[in-house]
Amino acid sequence: MTSPRDHPRRAAVVGTGLIGGSIGLALRSRGWQVSGTDVAEDRIRAALRIGALDRVGTDPEAEVTFVATPVSAIPSEATAALARGPEGSVVTDVGGVKAPVVAAVDHPRFVGGHPMAGSEQEGVEGADAELFSGATWVLTPASQTDPGAFTRLRSVIASLGADVVALDPERHDALVAVVSHVPHLAAATLMRLASDEGDAREVMLRLAAGGFRDMTRVAAGDPAIWPDVCVENAEAIVGSLDRLIESLADLRELVSHHDRSALLEILESAREARRSLPARYRRPDELAEIRVPVPDEAGQLAEITTLASALGVNIEDMEIAHSAEGERGVLVLVVAADAAEGLRRALGQRGYRPSARRLG
Amino acid sequence: MTSPRDHPRRAAVVGTGLIGGSIGLALRSRGWQVSGTDVAEDRIRAALRIGALDRVGTDPEAEVTFVATPVSAIPSEATAALARGPEGSVVTDVGGVKAPVVAAVDHPRFVGGHPMAGSEQEGVEGADAELFSGATWVLTPASQTDPGAFTRLRSVIASLGADVVALDPERHDALVAVVSHVPHLAAATLMRLASDEGDAREVMLRLAAGGFRDMTRVAAGDPAIWPDVCVENAEAIVGSLDRLIESLADLRELVSHHDRSALLEILESAREARRSLPARYRRPDELAEIRVPVPDEAGQLAEITTLASALGVNIEDMEIAHSAEGERGVLVLVVAADAAEGLRRALGQRGYRPSARRLG
Repeated sequence: MTSPRDHPRRAAVVGTGLIGGSIGLALRSRGWQVSGTDVAEDRIRAALRIGALDRVGTDPEAEVTFVATPVSAIPSEATAALARGPEGSVVTDVGGVKAPVVAAVDHPRFVGGHPMAGSEQEGVEGADAELFSGATWVLTPASQTDPGAFTRLRSVIASLGADVVALDPERHDALVAVVSHVPHLAAATLMRLASDEGDAREVMLRLAAGGFRDMTRVAAGDPAIWPDVCVENAEAIVGSLDRLIESLADLRELVSHHDRSALLEILESAREARRSLPARYRRPDELAEIRVPVPDEAGQLAEITTLASALGVNIEDMEIAHSAEGERGVLVLVVAADAAEGLRRALGQRGYRPSARRLG
Repeated sequence: MTSPRDHPRRAAVVGTGLIGGSIGLALRSRGWQVSGTDVAEDRIRAALRIGALDRVGTDPEAEVTFVATPVSAIPSEATAALARGPEGSVVTDVGGVKAPVVAAVDHPRFVGGHPMAGSEQEGVEGADAELFSGATWVLTPASQTDPGAFTRLRSVIASLGADVVALDPERHDALVAVVSHVPHLAAATLMRLASDEGDAREVMLRLAAGGFRDMTRVAAGDPAIWPDVCVENAEAIVGSLDRLIESLADLRELVSHHDRSALLEILESAREARRSLPARYRRPDELAEIRVPVPDEAGQLAEITTLASALGVNIEDMEIAHSAEGERGVLVLVVAADAAEGLRRALGQRGYRPSARRLG
């Protein structure tokens, strides 16, 4: 007799730091068997000790492999995992930059990923089985991505409690430059300006109230990953830094010309934007299903998920239903009911023939 | 028979928002009788309701008046309070900019002040009797300041649990530009760049993880005070914005030239600075007393307290002991034991004849 317990699903983690360790803990707490490797002997031992892994080593039968190494090591590790994995297995990564990684790996069973979760705490000691619960986890299907591999990976990641967002790799990189990379560089710069005050440094730091502490907190994190991130995402970061510098120069002019009303307007629009920043993504109460007949080939998926993102429509669930002939399939998307009609119409304008119906 | 309870000490608050209300609560919880006024009827009623005031109105017998209005209203309110107050009474303010206020009021019994405490919450509803406990509270004695008025005010503020730092008004303004005003403008700018992404705005905001939220939190606060602050402290803010823009432009070059090692060095120095940011000021275990004979006249005090700040020496306690003749006095400073010798020597180099001894 074979119970599901005798044959747990199997996953592998390459790189057992904070994120890799948390993935191991999250999967194991949901019944998976997890193997892991790391170039550092002490990290792998720590991962075993905290229960993030069942065993050390690669697993040629892993159905999903998470590559959680620094960005520069991802292409070679992902390629190796793809070579040893069984047919139908999926390889993903957790790097903060996606376009160069996706281009370098270039394989139908590789899907780039980026969980938007982390912590100031470095290393596997900060790992947490619920790190991804309620967090946004970006997946970046590209034209070469196999839709089946994408939907299988998507469902594993959703089972960890994460809200999956599908984004074009280049779009991801441009957006994280604005909300993560450039803010990080700005925090480090503000911190250095404050500490450059020589004799007054002690007094200066005592004047730093809660706002300054909040703003510079990220600068206390491990800097080791940042040179890689800056180089891999250089183009988007430079573009976003240019816009930041330009905006600050505009503000400088308003301050030097004592333009109270323009300053108030800018600060009010910033407040409104900050207040509309959702604390957490909330799953909509009412859902609808959109069925999109698609040729059973790569590329369609990336186009459709990117379109949904551009419209601000989150895909709550997704599957591929194959037709009997095997030449065509139906992509089934579940989205918020009030967003379904807009997405259906946009798909129609791009030549698809989607149908929509309310669920529940 | 007159017990101390029958004659509580009397204070007045002008402007009963978050800071004014918290001062009222803090003083009343320590036995003071507090009167208050505000241009807004609803704010004064709220202040009474939460127990921040004993009664509404001015008090010609208040020994200390706290002016907690927007910066632009401080000079006229402080001048009116000085005119109605009894001899020996002190007037202070809580404005975020000091040099223009101190220059405009220009009175021996006015001492500029700035408590480095606040909250995102606006208005008196967020007031808290312990808001200042452990917080840094800057006082800015100037050449015209009466040393006796300064030491009396200092002792009242220390009794609220605050750590008092004496700073030259111009120095204060330059330092808060770096640790408060410019970071605030940078947070607002980052928030606006992120929300300017049009169609992708929803996705963008979902990508904003904890670091971005931390960095932009201050932008959610009430913008109303900021145009005044920017105009009153325009010179220091422009100077500090220029240095920020220059540093960001340097970083941009490093990113675009893929200079990993220079980027790592910058981020490591920022991390070191952030980690040395004290969470809270800690009173030293061992103290020493420095006695400085001074002519009993204004100006000496500002020179001595500014010198201590420039050396990074915090004055833990201070009093003026007058000599029998009344022409000279002795300024008694209590500082950390390990800092006493350096301060004593620096005072000696400026022509004073200080003596130092360990306490306890």
